[in-house]
Amino acid sequence: MGMVGGGQGAFIGAVHRMAAALDSEIDLVCGAFSRDLANCSQTGRELGLTQDRCYSDLGEMLSCEASLGLGGGAAGGRGGMQLLSIVTPNNSHVDFASQAAKAGVHVMSDKPAGISLEEVEDLAVVLQATGTHYGLTHTYLGYPMVWQARHIAASEAFGPIRKVHVRYVQGWLASAAEDGNKQAAWRVDPALAGPGGALGDIGSHAHSLAEFICNSRMSSLVAHLRSHLPGRLLDDDGEILFELENGVTGSLVSSQICAGEENGLSITIYGENAGLEWHQEQPNSLIERRATGEVITHRAGVDKPLCDEALSRCRLPSGHPEGYVEAFANLYRNFARALRDGVAPITYGVPGIAEALRGMAFLEAAVESSNCAGALTEIKEPAYGPDRKGLLT
Amino acid sequence: MGMVGGGQGAFIGAVHRMAAALDSEIDLVCGAFSRDLANCSQTGRELGLTQDRCYSDLGEMLSCEASLGLGGGAAGGRGGMQLLSIVTPNNSHVDFASQAAKAGVHVMSDKPAGISLEEVEDLAVVLQATGTHYGLTHTYLGYPMVWQARHIAASEAFGPIRKVHVRYVQGWLASAAEDGNKQAAWRVDPALAGPGGALGDIGSHAHSLAEFICNSRMSSLVAHLRSHLPGRLLDDDGEILFELENGVTGSLVSSQICAGEENGLSITIYGENAGLEWHQEQPNSLIERRATGEVITHRAGVDKPLCDEALSRCRLPSGHPEGYVEAFANLYRNFARALRDGVAPITYGVPGIAEALRGMAFLEAAVESSNCAGALTEIKEPAYGPDRKGLLT
Amino acid sequence: MGMVGGGQGAFIGAVHRMAAALDSEIDLVCGAFSRDLANCSQTGRELGLTQDRCYSDLGEMLSCEASLGLGGGAAGGRGGMQLLSIVTPNNSHVDFASQAAKAGVHVMSDKPAGISLEEVEDLAVVLQATGTHYGLTHTYLGYPMVWQARHIAASEAFGPIRKVHVRYVQGWLASAAEDGNKQAAWRVDPALAGPGGALGDIGSHAHSLAEFICNSRMSSLVAHLRSHLPGRLLDDDGEILFELENGVTGSLVSSQICAGEENGLSITIYGENAGLEWHQEQPNSLIERRATGEVITHRAGVDKPLCDEALSRCRLPSGHPEGYVEAFANLYRNFARALRDGVAPITYGVPGIAEALRGMAFLEAAVESSNCAGALTEIKEPAYGPDRKGLLT
Amino acid sequence: MGMVGGGQGAFIGAVHRMAAALDSEIDLVCGAFSRDLANCSQTGRELGLTQDRCYSDLGEMLSCEASLGLGGGAAGGRGGMQLLSIVTPNNSHVDFASQAAKAGVHVMSDKPAGISLEEVEDLAVVLQATGTHYGLTHTYLGYPMVWQARHIAASEAFGPIRKVHVRYVQGWLASAAEDGNKQAAWRVDPALAGPGGALGDIGSHAHSLAEFICNSRMSSLVAHLRSHLPGRLLDDDGEILFELENGVTGSLVSSQICAGEENGLSITIYGENAGLEWHQEQPNSLIERRATGEVITHRAGVDKPLCDEALSRCRLPSGHPEGYVEAFANLYRNFARALRDGVAPITYGVPGIAEALRGMAFLEAAVESSNCAGALTEIKEPAYGPDRKGLLT
Repeated sequence: MGMVGGGQGAFIGAVHRMAAALDSEIDLVCGAFSRDLANCSQTGRELGLTQDRCYSDLGEMLSCEASLGLGGGAAGGRGGMQLLSIVTPNNSHVDFASQAAKAGVHVMSDKPAGISLEEVEDLAVVLQATGTHYGLTHTYLGYPMVWQARHIAASEAFGPIRKVHVRYVQGWLASAAEDGNKQAAWRVDPALAGPGGALGDIGSHAHSLAEFICNSRMSSLVAHLRSHLPGRLLDDDGEILFELENGVTGSLVSSQICAGEENGLSITIYGENAGLEWHQEQPNSLIERRATGEVITHRAGVDKPLCDEALSRCRLPSGHPEGYVEAFANLYRNFARALRDGVAPITYGVPGIAEALRGMAFLEAAVESSNCAGALTEIKEPAYGPDRKGLLT
Repeated sequence: MGMVGGGQGAFIGAVHRMAAALDSEIDLVCGAFSRDLANCSQTGRELGLTQDRCYSDLGEMLSCEASLGLGGGAAGGRGGMQLLSIVTPNNSHVDFASQAAKAGVHVMSDKPAGISLEEVEDLAVVLQATGTHYGLTHTYLGYPMVWQARHIAASEAFGPIRKVHVRYVQGWLASAAEDGNKQAAWRVDPALAGPGGALGDIGSHAHSLAEFICNSRMSSLVAHLRSHLPGRLLDDDGEILFELENGVTGSLVSSQICAGEENGLSITIYGENAGLEWHQEQPNSLIERRATGEVITHRAGVDKPLCDEALSRCRLPSGHPEGYVEAFANLYRNFARALRDGVAPITYGVPGIAEALRGMAFLEAAVESSNCAGALTEIKEPAYGPDRKGLLT
Repeated sequence: MGMVGGGQGAFIGAVHRMAAALDSEIDLVCGAFSRDLANCSQTGRELGLTQDRCYSDLGEMLSCEASLGLGGGAAGGRGGMQLLSIVTPNNSHVDFASQAAKAGVHVMSDKPAGISLEEVEDLAVVLQATGTHYGLTHTYLGYPMVWQARHIAASEAFGPIRKVHVRYVQGWLASAAEDGNKQAAWRVDPALAGPGGALGDIGSHAHSLAEFICNSRMSSLVAHLRSHLPGRLLDDDGEILFELENGVTGSLVSSQICAGEENGLSITIYGENAGLEWHQEQPNSLIERRATGEVITHRAGVDKPLCDEALSRCRLPSGHPEGYVEAFANLYRNFARALRDGVAPITYGVPGIAEALRGMAFLEAAVESSNCAGALTEIKEPAYGPDRKGLLT
Repeated sequence: MGMVGGGQGAFIGAVHRMAAALDSEIDLVCGAFSRDLANCSQTGRELGLTQDRCYSDLGEMLSCEASLGLGGGAAGGRGGMQLLSIVTPNNSHVDFASQAAKAGVHVMSDKPAGISLEEVEDLAVVLQATGTHYGLTHTYLGYPMVWQARHIAASEAFGPIRKVHVRYVQGWLASAAEDGNKQAAWRVDPALAGPGGALGDIGSHAHSLAEFICNSRMSSLVAHLRSHLPGRLLDDDGEILFELENGVTGSLVSSQICAGEENGLSITIYGENAGLEWHQEQPNSLIERRATGEVITHRAGVDKPLCDEALSRCRLPSGHPEGYVEAFANLYRNFARALRDGVAPITYGVPGIAEALRGMAFLEAAVESSNCAGALTEIKEPAYGPDRKGLLT
């Protein structure tokens, strides 16, 4: 695996690296960690890379690595990189993914997929043409209890889903963190972040989580977005009411000005006969409340009565907490295994271009609705190929 | 105290009676518990009343009790009743309150105050004319930690409030409970319940809680209400986005079809520097998260560092859980003390006619917005006297 | 009901009064609240009693009340008192209970029952001779989920009980609270409190809870008690290992120097196939963990699938928290109902003289063991009549 | 790094490998994963090792690896292994560690260190003679909030520590899991596990945690151990009362027959002015309750106000849960950094031979006490060198 972005001072790059390393199925072999060559070299050195595989830009990396051959197996090995991890600001995601795809390199991209639906539609065409695989790190879909929630929500006992409420609240932009914080700065710059601020950064996770667990596409919404800090150009706070194709209605809260909140993603889903509640900050518990009065806490762990999809995302017996990195690692591991097995990563539950497209369509619809004082807005159907539903069945 | 409603088969009447009895400051002396005289007599007998003070209707009760004199002190004593507790379905609240007021009897009414803003405005005129006092049992405003939340939210350290999210979810109407359940049946009948279903029954609590803690009046909203069960005429589920006069924005979820939920009222409030979280089902804890990273759990108890208003609503040292009845009893006790001390119950923190009016205006605005596909709707300013703000300062 | 003790400055008296008042089945009709007549009168006045029923000592109260007749029904009514609530320091419990019994008045006594097993054995003889009823306020046995725990622990599915760990920790004696705090002062004085400090005050609750849920008598123990503050004569902290008659082993922690703790009573019980966990500070939840991996939270509420004994101790639907006063009230209400129905209060689940005797035997054994450096000590079999097991079956 | 043990069917080996891989500072370069060569080869293949570095026994591995030179840096690199990870049953720990040390290879050993104090004392001599480093995977000492707890417990504000209660309960041996479960089988066999069953497996963690947070050595104890299943030779359940050198008293529960429990390690510590509570299953929260009534939840995260030792053990911002593997990885990463920096791993907080010795002395004292019906037993002072206190200061 190679990486673009993730040099010193970055945050998410290190997380991708831990996630990729955890299961010893992926080797980091090269990187274009920073356009600043000193930074890039230093990062590579700290990661045990030789200097000749620390590159100053992606183009150079792709061509040099190609010359090493792609021999060593799908996701690592002795040859050049076969998989590119993209951990740069949003505005470069599509360009880098396209370059990689054209060079025959698979892509794992941080989210959101890009800064417009249009450019991601173009990327979809490239991916289809090149036959390369693409994964999008909607981390929270790597948690076992999210899969268990989807499993239960699909059961006859649960009954048809009626409602979903999803909430993603953080507090780190409650004050002007962007002054002097590199992580904050690009996220509030439309040129780098795209049309969504908090909505792109975390609302996109909430959107994918709701669609995934309910197994249905969001079709329309009413959005009220706003920015609380003077001069901040992108939303840092907002509420959305929405409807899914299967008739489920719900609400989505996305805010980064909720002072004191850490990484407060939570979701509740109600069927005719029961409800489910999951909090990312306590990811190993999934609470089910049945209309008959029983309250059950489903717990993660290889020794627990869970569905196969949840079990395969646990590494340890219950009571040995697995967390964010492990969820993230499930995406990387499954991507690698898909490459090894010659199947599409979506087969192994890794979010891909379908999720990327739906996420961008959601973002654009929400911004449009909010700009029109909360008008009811249809979410555009992205133009793409036959695997339209992605993780939705 | 006398009671109208609350005969056998009723629920909330017994709660009012426990709340009134807890602190031994109010005696139940008479009742018109049911229009069915056998039921009324039996209820009275079980409550230790003599048969001559069990009445078949309110009119009879008011005239007979008046003949006993109003001698025995503000909230009980040897003479006739001085306070009427109204625990009937919504459509009779205003009529009964007016009758009582005209007879010089103070009123503690269950919520919502009535079935239209107009009739509650009329009641306000009667109350002003008669000089009688009126309390509305927004139970949750009786909890000490709700007062502590308001206290913290008003502090300089908390910073200006920016956001409030309130959520009230129950599951008991997830299936057609109204077939054969008296409690459910009247709540889904517009003639008895008024314009709001879940919104009137529990959304009104969520509204009053948000206004109270933020200490600001809700000024406009966008409401999406619906009913999930065939033939159900009133909302059983809905989401509202709103704005308060002080600029705070927020969301309100009100649903009785959230299968498995018990009495899930919760609220989060965010200021510039901190956030607060309170769950009615764990009422003795109030969580404060500060932007500086500290997480504090404020706990109820007479031995705890709380504001005076919270402390005066605790009876026991921390760790001795007080609950719903105790919160309810705080309203009754403070009403009785206000009568004893010759002040308006609002002075001692009991919600009154101002809350009643705002609650009805909220209900009507929400129904109107929902009927207009979620149009942005101003909440009408009720016509009433100089104490416009009630509990809001 | 009459009360001895509970004047101004006292704590537990007010709790007993709320507990007795909650369900409107018991009237407080007289009191000897304090040997200080002004205090007694003032307390009575605040409680709405006439001055002629405020007495300066118990003897006077018993004789005057007897002259009023015992006509008005079991637990209140128009005649003299039929039930005496004893809320004085421990050293007077037995004397007052004996006086009442000899006057034909039933007794509800605060715990522990007395200051020596011997004097409580004498009391048992008096009770048997007079045919009066005696209840001991082991409050925690009034909680519905404690009964549910016992119910589950007795089930075949749970399997034979193997272990019990009970822990009662408070922090209010972490510093020298007894200097100037009346509540603390008598509890650390052996003459007033008896042989146990923390052990008598709260360890006795832990003992009764463990025996009750496991439905077996504690037979032997190893105790290590100590006092952390200079000059404090009674234990303020200790650990006990014990065995029940049914072979269950366990531990008991009793401490009032656990700084920061509120009223931290908790218990875990393990059978061959499952475990149970209950925390008094969250009394409406009982967690069951099954060996098969399922985790179930049993919740209090009249609408929940609970055993009859638990249901009959709930007043409200789930999600409307009931707490300490409601648990306490269950003891009073059931005592009153037993008197009304002419059965022994133990029949309705009120702890009585058997629990009183076992509690004293436990206390004396623990102090003896601790004085002998933690020697294994048998718990004495108290001398009393045929209803030896009390709540144990 | 090389590994001995951890072939197919093993559990803890995979955990060590994830822990070592997470931070990309250690490479697994060779292994003697199983005495069964096919198993060993297959395990190596799955881990991406070449067959020539999969060895059938440790001796062969040590000699072959030595021939590759120890060139590539402290904890990995191009040469032979420099660090041996021992993940075999207890009876081989000391032998393997000694072999490695004599070959100049550092050791990271699973716990407990061995099966007798004597053999671990001998190992200490070898380590001292060879100058090799030794780490013991007391995983829980890798959690940031455990370091924060120690930090707070040492503060003046906390006051002198008075009490510690530690509890480690699991349920997986509640039934006869050893029939057909390799993990269970050796743990209940004295020849393989040593003198302690549950006590060696998990009680040893509880012991190290209590000593570590209180920063004091356990000096004496009273132990009651037992086995609940017929034919089980080692303890599966027990309670211990103990005293630390600094006068702190406490209790330790160690049990693997607590049906339904997962990995329930928890600890409470009380000082004169506050208490602390930590649960391994919720490792990112540390609750502090102050005698003044404040309850604070300290939360893990690089953005939180924590002590340096805690912060350096966090990788992510708060709200991104880190768990068991991350705690484990902290031990490996710090061991590797110590080797890189040429200091003893204890300097970077990795438990070592001092903890190994104290752990064995604790085990032997507990078994001796239990065999003598719970006699008060001094914990032997192990014979070892000048760094007696290890992590204790």
